[in-house]
This record gives sequence, structure tokens and C-alpha cells, in this order.
Amino acid sequence: MKRAFMREDFLLPNDTARELFRQVKDLPILDYHCHINPREIWEDRRFENITQVWLGGDHYKWRLMRQNGVPEEEITGKAPDRVKFQRFAETLPLAIGNPMYHWCHLELKRYFGYEGVLNGGTAEEVWQLTRKKLQEDPTLSVRGLIRRSHVEVIGTTDDPADDLCWHEKLRREKGFPVKVLPSFRPDRALKCRQPGFPSYIHLLEEVCRLAVSSLKEFKRILCLRMDFFDKMGCRACDHGLDTLPFVPATEQEAETVFLRALHGHRVTQREEDLYITHMLTFLGREYKKRGWVMQLHYNAQRNVNRRQFRLLGPDTGFDCISTNESSAQLSALLNAMEETDSLPRTILYSLSGEENMMIASVAGSFTEPQVRGKVQLGAAWWFQDTKAGMEKQLRDVAQSSLLGNFVGMLTDSRSFLSYTRHEYFRRILCGLIGQWVENGEYPDDKETLTSLVRGICCENARAFFGF
Amino acid sequence: MKRAFMREDFLLPNDTARELFRQVKDLPILDYHCHINPREIWEDRRFENITQVWLGGDHYKWRLMRQNGVPEEEITGKAPDRVKFQRFAETLPLAIGNPMYHWCHLELKRYFGYEGVLNGGTAEEVWQLTRKKLQEDPTLSVRGLIRRSHVEVIGTTDDPADDLCWHEKLRREKGFPVKVLPSFRPDRALKCRQPGFPSYIHLLEEVCRLAVSSLKEFKRILCLRMDFFDKMGCRACDHGLDTLPFVPATEQEAETVFLRALHGHRVTQREEDLYITHMLTFLGREYKKRGWVMQLHYNAQRNVNRRQFRLLGPDTGFDCISTNESSAQLSALLNAMEETDSLPRTILYSLSGEENMMIASVAGSFTEPQVRGKVQLGAAWWFQDTKAGMEKQLRDVAQSSLLGNFVGMLTDSRSFLSYTRHEYFRRILCGLIGQWVENGEYPDDKETLTSLVRGICCENARAFFGF
Amino acid sequence: MKRAFMREDFLLPNDTARELFRQVKDLPILDYHCHINPREIWEDRRFENITQVWLGGDHYKWRLMRQNGVPEEEITGKAPDRVKFQRFAETLPLAIGNPMYHWCHLELKRYFGYEGVLNGGTAEEVWQLTRKKLQEDPTLSVRGLIRRSHVEVIGTTDDPADDLCWHEKLRREKGFPVKVLPSFRPDRALKCRQPGFPSYIHLLEEVCRLAVSSLKEFKRILCLRMDFFDKMGCRACDHGLDTLPFVPATEQEAETVFLRALHGHRVTQREEDLYITHMLTFLGREYKKRGWVMQLHYNAQRNVNRRQFRLLGPDTGFDCISTNESSAQLSALLNAMEETDSLPRTILYSLSGEENMMIASVAGSFTEPQVRGKVQLGAAWWFQDTKAGMEKQLRDVAQSSLLGNFVGMLTDSRSFLSYTRHEYFRRILCGLIGQWVENGEYPDDKETLTSLVRGICCENARAFFGF
Repeated sequence: MKRAFMREDFLLPNDTARELFRQVKDLPILDYHCHINPREIWEDRRFENITQVWLGGDHYKWRLMRQNGVPEEEITGKAPDRVKFQRFAETLPLAIGNPMYHWCHLELKRYFGYEGVLNGGTAEEVWQLTRKKLQEDPTLSVRGLIRRSHVEVIGTTDDPADDLCWHEKLRREKGFPVKVLPSFRPDRALKCRQPGFPSYIHLLEEVCRLAVSSLKEFKRILCLRMDFFDKMGCRACDHGLDTLPFVPATEQEAETVFLRALHGHRVTQREEDLYITHMLTFLGREYKKRGWVMQLHYNAQRNVNRRQFRLLGPDTGFDCISTNESSAQLSALLNAMEETDSLPRTILYSLSGEENMMIASVAGSFTEPQVRGKVQLGAAWWFQDTKAGMEKQLRDVAQSSLLGNFVGMLTDSRSFLSYTRHEYFRRILCGLIGQWVENGEYPDDKETLTSLVRGICCENARAFFGF
Repeated sequence: MKRAFMREDFLLPNDTARELFRQVKDLPILDYHCHINPREIWEDRRFENITQVWLGGDHYKWRLMRQNGVPEEEITGKAPDRVKFQRFAETLPLAIGNPMYHWCHLELKRYFGYEGVLNGGTAEEVWQLTRKKLQEDPTLSVRGLIRRSHVEVIGTTDDPADDLCWHEKLRREKGFPVKVLPSFRPDRALKCRQPGFPSYIHLLEEVCRLAVSSLKEFKRILCLRMDFFDKMGCRACDHGLDTLPFVPATEQEAETVFLRALHGHRVTQREEDLYITHMLTFLGREYKKRGWVMQLHYNAQRNVNRRQFRLLGPDTGFDCISTNESSAQLSALLNAMEETDSLPRTILYSLSGEENMMIASVAGSFTEPQVRGKVQLGAAWWFQDTKAGMEKQLRDVAQSSLLGNFVGMLTDSRSFLSYTRHEYFRRILCGLIGQWVENGEYPDDKETLTSLVRGICCENARAFFGF
Repeated sequence: MKRAFMREDFLLPNDTARELFRQVKDLPILDYHCHINPREIWEDRRFENITQVWLGGDHYKWRLMRQNGVPEEEITGKAPDRVKFQRFAETLPLAIGNPMYHWCHLELKRYFGYEGVLNGGTAEEVWQLTRKKLQEDPTLSVRGLIRRSHVEVIGTTDDPADDLCWHEKLRREKGFPVKVLPSFRPDRALKCRQPGFPSYIHLLEEVCRLAVSSLKEFKRILCLRMDFFDKMGCRACDHGLDTLPFVPATEQEAETVFLRALHGHRVTQREEDLYITHMLTFLGREYKKRGWVMQLHYNAQRNVNRRQFRLLGPDTGFDCISTNESSAQLSALLNAMEETDSLPRTILYSLSGEENMMIASVAGSFTEPQVRGKVQLGAAWWFQDTKAGMEKQLRDVAQSSLLGNFVGMLTDSRSFLSYTRHEYFRRILCGLIGQWVENGEYPDDKETLTSLVRGICCENARAFFGF
């Protein structure tokens, strides 16, 4: 059967899939990991035009434009917003088979009611339509977007030194029922080879009004910050690691590295790995105490184009998938935590999708009575966050563990329009399960199926994070 | 077309697939590699209930239960069998997309005639039905199960020190026509870093009534054991290796390592690799002399959860896929055998399914006149032994070599109910080929197609192993 | 719907796919990378029989025959051509799911009008038919084959020392309108550990009538050769690398290695990697100056069966996929070129298909204003050049970058019958896009779709290479 472009049955190949999607499409969104700015929520920011929303900070779109030969001037440079949008619209038709094509059109449909196709020829029409709505439609302010998307929880990503003032204001705001919860991301406390490490420690000293002259004191500061985050509703931490290290060491050895780094001395890669290993084990125990979920994002190689990095800085579209796959290190790290009762509920996200089955096999070796899916392979991340990547992740989780316990989708996004990615995920999930059912691979039992998809789309995350 | 759950056309998407399956479904099963206990065959063991059969030793099921938060007490502990079964039944519906879901229901259908769906609600009904049949139905004793499954050959997995007394008894048993053949698995003779290595050598000394004070003498003992196994009908060996080593060495160097290990001195990882490399080459030649097939299982990382290992021991569900992929080592090892005329017919099983194409490309570089498919990528193993994993293995073998020469399925199982996995494989194989044919990718020539599927399901293994 | 074997709608599952294929099936072929012999074009060689064409130099076919146990005598040895063909025909039916099955039948259909199925029983009929046509049909000489295949450009693969005399003759030939352009492949100038390295340098000295006593002088010679190739219409270079090295060094260090190698002294693997890294960066700059495209083929492990290598030499079917995947080295190498303005348009071909997404993610980090798809993941290569491998490459390019900028297919072949692989590719491409469109994943807009497929099949390569 021939289907028109992105209609109601988009990615829903049969009746079962469509029925299941009806069961989940309006469920609340628990966006447990993202990078949006809580200040913009509090201020209920409005955007002047679609370029601000789409091209203001989205390195996915920048990459595609650059790959199409668009000069930087017209991507992140000083060219007028209208020109930037034009270039993007001209690039988009070439992105056949790319999730960007679907994301953009889902956003245009759901938030702007635009049912056409975006390309160089329709860019003006889309520009005018979206500009008017962004400026006038009350449901297209940041809070409006969140509300109309049925978002119930937003897990931001925050530095331990952050005072969380915007989270605080939002907590006190009566009229805005969405939980905006911080997540603890202590990357700067771990990456002790970074030039800014000593000054970061000093920042934490100031924030806590405590001096740090030993690793023990530093850990105490981190605990204070975790207590503060916890009080502010934090339910999860997150770590961004290039590779997953495992270099076991004594407290004394870790302290030696810490002090060297603190005093600005040179630290080797191995020493940093040792320090990170030690700190992850320490932090794991603290996370577990607080009932937090630990998220590990790894195997990203950052800033590989050094010239562009010098011009544009980090997180601008010059990162890639890394190939440092090691079942030995992953399992040893989890085991070190397990051995010392320091392993919290954990979600593993590797940028290398070829590792899915290995990761799932390691994850499934660490369990805890009464905890469903204690260590999980996370949703397809970044370069893997595509239709095929999501299907692969779902199939791999299913064939190697219990898909019914998967905590589901997150946007990982900086954009307030990206909630449609939950719709995209829910369609793909229901499509996959619908195919299994109508292919005779799982019983056609509506109650069980509904319970499964509602769990994966919403309820599992609620229980896992304790929202 | 909507299909009901696991009916006759299960995994058979079109007429060609269904017709091909009719050609193979009743073919004998040559289960050339498994882990069942020959004593239980000789004693024609009966099981009291389904928990004994399903949960007595199946770490696949244990893992899923643990991942669902079931306490160990109710998995491998002292909880009553009925409770354990209940917990498993409650877990199963979450295993959508997992082969366990299909295996369990195939076994319930084929051996117990149960056409319903197992879950927490139906557990009692299934418990009663299966208990009654297990205790009363004469075709549900071990021998009954083997016979009704059309099993013709069973290749067990045996230590060189084993006296094969149960095999011997079974050979003499007139009324039981199934060949139960030993396979030679000398892992303990190779893993010289294991603490038990010296005492294992002493055991072999006793078995053979010969003293070992040199590598040459040790090899002589192994040859004697191979002769004994051969006399007992052995057609294959098997090696379980963590990684595939290749460290070439002289006889003298290998002997030095052997003697150090024998005398309880410390042996490094590299030294063990050297010793294993040497021994594999030696053994390869002996296997080839005897016309045996060499099976190499590798890239499994064992016992990654050390705490559970201390509590429950090995093979209890705490292993994972390893990532030590090396085309250089694999090809060098095979080449070392080839160079010295020591390369027997070989089946390679890596737990890392991402390696399929690489392995097939190496395997295809080692051939021998008059031998069809001399070195093969083996059937999808363990974590890869899923519907998707089996399809991938079949596609990868097909696209990189001659699928028509593939020796097909094995259970690798400890369970007497697992013969339905051959049915699962045959359905997947016929489904795949049926799709190719009806998609115009292969001629619709019944004779050729029947010959292909009969070969892969049965005849190729018969010729390859010389059963 | 059941389709007959390889009819008009082969691999075209729906109306959109069939319509798109009609748009591209007669487009010219720009076969920008192959290994055919220009002399045979100039001489307009005729073949006596199908064995000469198919089994004269095709190690893909040899491998399959060997894997089927055919003795070498009847593959590359002295057996009569008719016998060799018989053995191949007997092997082919086992190759279900292998691209060889489709390639052979496409060639029989398109060039010989044979609509039957090749196997042991039909071999005689096919032998007679093809022999008659090869000897008599004027469109089955080399030039005839090229013309009837609508080939517009042929990019051969040539050593820098080559005098390109056959290219020269072909340029002057008025009646043969096909561009036969050399490609610069300086492998022998880079692999300085090869025993023949010094004599190869001396060969280049003679060709250029210049003495080489320093790296600078050697580079000058290479530049002269590049100038000559450029004058002869060269638009691309090609490098065949076992692994992708990255060992940065000074000019002085590189020269030290070069001189050691030149004087026949021992060079370590690391030193060779250093030298290759240095030379690739130097060459990249020169390629960029000339507007050439740089092709890097890597992760092939050569001659793994040493015994057969000694008997039959290189490129005879004893190579395999290598697993030296490294995002760090790939990105560092490209970055070193980028940093020094030496990065030309580049196509990356890894023999390890599991790397697709990683490579695409690195490639997409290197862009240039006004250049569409500057660094690309190349078409599926060698062991990956299968239906599944091509679909995977297309999906991976699509989901990670802009498929619309992909430069499309090449034969990489030594055979004049292999142009049907472009048809195979075009069918797979149109089939994939047709499925996306009729699944509602891309708009059903004929103009845009036609532009996309025409681009990928022909126009993109024309622009990228500057043909």
C-alpha cells in the first residue's frame, strides 16, 4: 500500500501498530535527559523566527549545511537569518533517509500546522508562517511548547557548581506544573588533564566556602553539591566520557594524581584514567545512596577538525564516533562498583552502535533484586539516533534482555521543538511491535501489548528514576 | 496478512517458504555440538516438573529473571519449584522480541501440546499440564524426547580425561538407535594459567598410567586420549577460548611454558597464548589425521560479575560478549596450521556477531580440494543465537561464500527440550530462502531449492563430520 | 506478489522504484575507479570463450570454486577452459544469496541474451551460446562492450612510473568517444618496507631522468609524474593501504626513513607508518592543487594463506577483511591535511563495513565551502559489495549525511562485463528510495526524486571528479 508523506499512519505499518500508537501518543513525556536551558523556561522565551529555533544552536543542522558546501557565514556567521534558513531549506531535500528530514517536518506539522514540504522553493512560505506563529501564538513560547507537548518532567544537565537558581524559581512557580529537575554532570571534576581543572576546583571551593587540599576534602565538596542537587529534585547524574576507562588504584594513588592536577602539574592519560576510575566508583556509591540513576555517555571523539574547533569552539558539529570498544573495561568498571556495593541503576550510551549487543550482554550481568532492568543499554544516541539506529537499539535490547523494562526515549536536545522526537520514537516502537504481532511472533493480546508500550513510553522511566 | 501467534506458518512468509519447510521439517536432527549429559540418556531420566527441565540449569532463563528483579532465592535458590516457575512465567511477557519467548512456546507446543500463552496468569495451568505429562507420558523421558525429535546423532562435549563410560553403555544398547558421540574438548589441557592445571595433568597421567615430564610425553598422552575418543566414535573436537591467540614459538619455548605451569610456577598471559598457539597447531594436525572437525568457540568474556561468580560459580549467567576482534590473529593461526598441513575441517564461532563478515573472509581463504566448505563461519552462537542473529549469520555466509555448503544448526544446549531450536532454525532458513525466491533473487526451481535446504538442515553436516 | 527470477522489475519492489529506475537505467556510466587494462581497449580485444572473460582473472569466482572443493588445476591451472567453466557452473547454484549469482546472470542476460539459469546442467548450452557470440558479435569485443554499456568515462588504476602509452593512443583515437583516464596510484612509492622499494625508486629515476638522493628530490619526481598524469586527463588518485596510519613527523624524520629504505636498510612498521603519513599529507596537498579526488582503500589484509601466495602470487583470492578500525587515526590523518590546507576531495573505502557510521561521522567533520560532499564514505567495496552491503552503505550515508551528494557506484573490476554492476546498484538505489517514498518517509515528488537518483547515478560523480 502506498502511503502519502508523513500522514497519521507514518511508520505504523499495520492495524496493531496504529492501535498501539493510539494508546501512547498522548502519554506524558518524561524527558529525563536533555540540554535545554532552564532560564529560557523561566523567562518563557519567545523566538523571533525559525532560524533562531532551528539554527541557533543545532550542530546536527550545521553539519548537513557544511556538507552541502554552504559557507560558514551563512550557517553560524553574520548572514541574515532569512538567508541561513534559505540555505538550510535548500540542503534539506538532499537529506533523504536522514532523521533530520523527519524531525523538521514533524516539527513543522505539530507546532506550526504546516503540511507541506520544506525546500528552497517553499522556504519563503515557511519562513512567513513560522515567524508569525512564533511571534504571536501563545502556545509557541517556551512554556507553551512544553505544555502542548505534554511534557511532565524535564531532566536538564548541570554542572555541580551551578546554583540552580532557575530550577529554584521554576519550583516555586505555581502556574507551571512541569517538573524541571537538574541532573548532576561532574565532567569538569573528572577530566583532570583539562587546563581549567585547578580553577574549576577553586570555583567549587568558593561555591561551598570550603578549601580543598586533599582528595577527601574534594569528595566532601562533591557530596555537598550532590546533597544540594538532591534537595532540588535531582534524580540522575550524567557523565560524558571519551572512552570508558578502567585503571584500578588505591585512594592514595588517586589522591596523588588529583593533587598533581590541582597544582597544575602534568597528568598523563593513564593517570587521568586512574583518577576517573576511582572517582566514578566513589560517585557511584553516592549516587546509589541517593537512589539516583547513573548515565554514562561514551565513545565520542570530540573536535576532530582542529581548525574549526579553534574558530568555533566545542559542540559545533566536528565530533565523531569513536572506536574504543572494550568489553573488558566496561565490565571491569561495573564490577568494581558492584564489588563495593557502589553500582546504582545505570544507563549506558555508547556512540558506537556496533557495540549494542556487547553492552547489553555486560549490562545484563549486573542485576539487583526488586530492580527491573538495573543496568540498561540506553536509547540510540546522537549519530545513532536515527530510524534505523532506534530500531536496531530496540531489537538489540529485545533479543538480549527484556525490552519490556526499557526506560525509553529522551531528546538529549537543546531545542524546545524536539519533543516530537518522542512521537517519532513511539511510532517506531509501535511499528516494530505491530510487525512482530501481525507476523505471529508475539500474541495479539491488547492488554499485555498496551502495558508493554505504555511502560516503555512512560511508566518504566517514572519507576526507574523515581519521578 | 495478519498471522496468529506461532501457527503452522510461523516465520514462513510465503508459499515457497512453507513448501521448503515441508521438505525439511521431519528430517533427522544431527545435533553435532551440545552439552547434554550422556548419563541422563542412558538412565532415561524423567523430570518431575517443568522447573526441573527449564530452570534446572539454563542460565539464559536465569539472566532474564534476574534482570526482572527476581531474587536469587527464587531462581537458583531454595524457593519451591512452583514459585520459581511462577517468577519465570511472570517475566516471560516482557521478553517480547527475545528468542526465549519463541523457544518456550515451541517447547510447550511440540512436547506438551499446549497452544496457549505462558504468563503469570496461565502459569498454574501450564504447571499442572506439564507436570502430569512429564511424569506420565512415555515420550517425555529423556530417550522419549530424543526419539520423538528425530534425533539421529548427538555430539556431546567431553574432557579428554573422561572415561566415556556412558557413551560406551549407549553404544552397546541395542534398542536405542541414536548415535551419542563424544567430542574432544581439551580446554583444561590448554589453559595453563588455571590454578588446577598441574592437578589436571596428573589426572591425565593417572588415566593413561603414564608419567609426564616433558611436553612430548604430554602430547603422547593427548594422542592416546584422541585415539580412545576416536574409537568411541568421536568426529569432532571443540575449544572454548576467551580470545583467539597467536604467538608463534618453537617446541622448546612451548615446553618451557608447559613445564613452568606443570610445576606450579607463574605463567604470563603471553606465555599462555604462546602455549595455546603451539598446542592448537599440534592438535590441529592430530585432528586432521583422524578426519575430525575442529570447532573454535571464542570471544566470550566469562564471569564478569565477580561477586556472583563467587556465590554461584561459572556458567550461571554472568558472561558477556568480548571485543577482542583480530583478523590478523585468526588468519595467522589458520595459516600456521595450513603451512604445516595441520588444518582440519574447521568451524569458527565468535561470540561477537559484528565479526561475521571478517571471519567468513578469513575462512574462505583456506580451502582444500574435494572438501566443501572446509573452514566455515559457524551457526549464530549464544547471545547471537536469536532470530536476527541467525538471519544475519545466514545472510553473511551467503553473501561472502557458499551458503549451500553450510553445515547448519546445533543446539549447544544442556536441555533435552531444545531440539525445537532446529525447527526454529529450519523455519528461519526456509523463510529467508522463500523471500529470496519470491523476490526474484533466485530461481523458483523446486529441485535445487530442496537440495539446498536439505543439505543445510542435514546432509552437509553428515558429510562434513562423517557421521 | 511472487516475482519470477531477475525480470524487468528485479529488486524494484514498487511503482516508484520502477519509475525511478526508468529515469536512470540508460544514463551514462562514469566508472571512475576500476582495474581494467587500457591496452585491451586499444587493441579491442576479443575473447574466445566465457572462461577467458569470467575465469581469466576474477579472484571472486576462484574463491567460490575453491570453497566448493574444486582443485586448483581446474580453477587457475591447466585444465581445459570448458572444464573450468563446468566446475564454476556446478558451484554457482550453491551461491544463493551471493552477489556472484546476480552478477553472472545479469551478464548472461544483458550481453548474451541468455534468460535461463546457469548450473551444471545448462553449462554446455551457455558455453556454446557465449562462445559463438564472443567470437562473432561485434558488440562483444572490448570496445563493443564498453559502448553498448553506455560507458562515458573509465578511470583506470596506474602506477606513477607508467608511461600511459595506451591512454595516449586512446586519446588520439577519433572513433572511440569514451574517456579512458588514468588514476595515480603510488602504492609502491609509499610502501617502503617492500623489498622492491629501492629498485622502484630507481625505475622512477629512469622514467624522469633525474637522480634521487633526498626526499625532496623524490617528491619532485612524484610531482613531475602527477603533472604528466594530469596532462593525460587524470582526475583522481588512489591509495591501497592495509591500515590507515597516523604517525606525525618532521620532514627530517620522514627523510631519514626514506633514505634508510632507499639504501635497503631495515625499516620498522612504525617507521613505514611515519613515512606514509608524511607522504600522504604531502600528496594530499598536490592532489588538492590539481583538483584531483583522493581515494583511500584500506583495512584489507592481504595474502593470509601464505602457501597459496607462494604458489599463485598476490590478488588471487587469499585476502580478507581487516579489523584495524581507528577513528582516532582516520580523523588525525584528515585533520593533519586540513590543518595544512592539503585535504583534497576524498572518498574513503574501508573493507570493514562495520565502520560505515564511524567513517561517515569523521568524513562529515571535514567540509569546504562550495564543495558538496567533500569527504565521503565510498560505495561498498569488495567483500561488502553485495546487495546487503550496498543497501547498508546507502542507508548509512543517508542517515549520517546527505545521500543526495553521494558520488555513486564504481566497478573496481578487471572485467569488461562488469558494467552490469552499475545496473545492479541503480536497481538497489531505486528500490530503497522507492520503499522510502511509498512508506511515506519522503515526498512523492517526481522532480526531486529524479534529480536525486540522476545525481547519485551520474551527475554527482561528474561534478565531484570534474569529468
